[in-house]
Amino acid sequence: MENNKLPKVGRYLFLAEPFHCNFKGMLFPGHLGNHMLNAADFHSDERGYGMSKLLPQHKTWVLSRLVLEMQEMPKVYDKFYIETWVDGIMKFFTTRNYSVVSPEGKVFGYGKSIWALIDTDTRKPSDLLELNEGAILNYVEKEKECPIDNPSHVKMGKQANRIKSLKVSYSDIDMNGHVNSMKYLEHALDIYSLDYWGKKALRRLEIAYIIEAYYDCTLHFYEEEVSADHYHIRVTKSDESSEEETDVCRIAFIFEDNK
Amino acid sequence: MENNKLPKVGRYLFLAEPFHCNFKGMLFPGHLGNHMLNAADFHSDERGYGMSKLLPQHKTWVLSRLVLEMQEMPKVYDKFYIETWVDGIMKFFTTRNYSVVSPEGKVFGYGKSIWALIDTDTRKPSDLLELNEGAILNYVEKEKECPIDNPSHVKMGKQANRIKSLKVSYSDIDMNGHVNSMKYLEHALDIYSLDYWGKKALRRLEIAYIIEAYYDCTLHFYEEEVSADHYHIRVTKSDESSEEETDVCRIAFIFEDNK
Repeated sequence: MENNKLPKVGRYLFLAEPFHCNFKGMLFPGHLGNHMLNAADFHSDERGYGMSKLLPQHKTWVLSRLVLEMQEMPKVYDKFYIETWVDGIMKFFTTRNYSVVSPEGKVFGYGKSIWALIDTDTRKPSDLLELNEGAILNYVEKEKECPIDNPSHVKMGKQANRIKSLKVSYSDIDMNGHVNSMKYLEHALDIYSLDYWGKKALRRLEIAYIIEAYYDCTLHFYEEEVSADHYHIRVTKSDESSEEETDVCRIAFIFEDNK
Repeated sequence: MENNKLPKVGRYLFLAEPFHCNFKGMLFPGHLGNHMLNAADFHSDERGYGMSKLLPQHKTWVLSRLVLEMQEMPKVYDKFYIETWVDGIMKFFTTRNYSVVSPEGKVFGYGKSIWALIDTDTRKPSDLLELNEGAILNYVEKEKECPIDNPSHVKMGKQANRIKSLKVSYSDIDMNGHVNSMKYLEHALDIYSLDYWGKKALRRLEIAYIIEAYYDCTLHFYEEEVSADHYHIRVTKSDESSEEETDVCRIAFIFEDNK
């Protein structure tokens, strides 16, 4: 479905399904992140530059950065819209924003992301402006508000402790053959105890993706508390051939006390 | 929404979302199972005996058995309907069937399940026929076909090997405070290698739930190959106070060669 008359902002309805909610009846951040990826996919597909159009051309979108800042999480059975729009284009990257809102207009939170277009054969960046005759340029929205901080640089000090290592599993691997980008987030959120989650809410999360991991990898999670309730996590991978570790992604979490 | 004029069979549309699909672009069984639970929830809710009505009455549905037999799995971006209906009622249990069909009417597969109604305070079975003045009796459908075998008794021999143990994580725990029933399935399916999944398709799965596991538990997975591509898995739990293991659920998988 390609349609030049579509608005620049896409708006998609989701439901906080019961088994996508945590023990407090709030949507798991990983499932919200997945819905944001879906919204981005629907939005780009309807406008002529989505995955279903790209894959036959041996191109794909790769998520490079994701930031999510939530005032409140949708609760079980809440319906909510994810609005998404492209707000900037560089040769090899786009910036895409999100808002998460209730049908009544209450804002749950906002997101920002950076995506690269790559060639699936060479794994190298591909020129966005050549994509479907520059279709993406018709849909840049600069006015709509997304009042959260841009992605920061997630610095790791020397104090980070290795918290856990896990072998990549069948359920971690997505249709591109690498570890699903939301799985890093889920595995990282699993570092925090149920007791901690009982007292806190996740206010902001950031992920910066560096390189992909595959089925034969083991992932290692290093964590450091930067300040109270503010954590940086470095995820590395190693494989069977060597114990040498390569950085896969960096994550920042800012929790706050329950309101 | 309670409506005596609703048909006995509910029919709900789902999408095989890209990040719910495996490396072959086929829907993960755990996500299909989750959609089946959602369909059951929507169906019962619309007919006056769903979770949103039950929880304030301190009652809940507990899944006791699930069988799923698939001729084919939905592929990425496939839309599919899950049809579900209650086909039998005993004092403390209902049997609920499912069919998974494409919008064109192609059958992907069928499911059967057994649910108990329990009192959330006492954790004891609760009389179904007292529920909302016996509303459930208005919706028993005996004629619709569900041509797969009933749940069997998953027997474990003495040859089962402990394949893995894992500490329950934050993301395993659902809004009832126990391990999400689909998470046992996902952890069990993760026993099989990507290479094996590349050659095989999962034709039939069964789960029999025995007792719930909680956050402080470690789960242990014992597996035995009953015949070629036919596996039985016993899941047990232990907690910090003792290494003694209690049976949590039993699972059977029948794989077949790719068609």
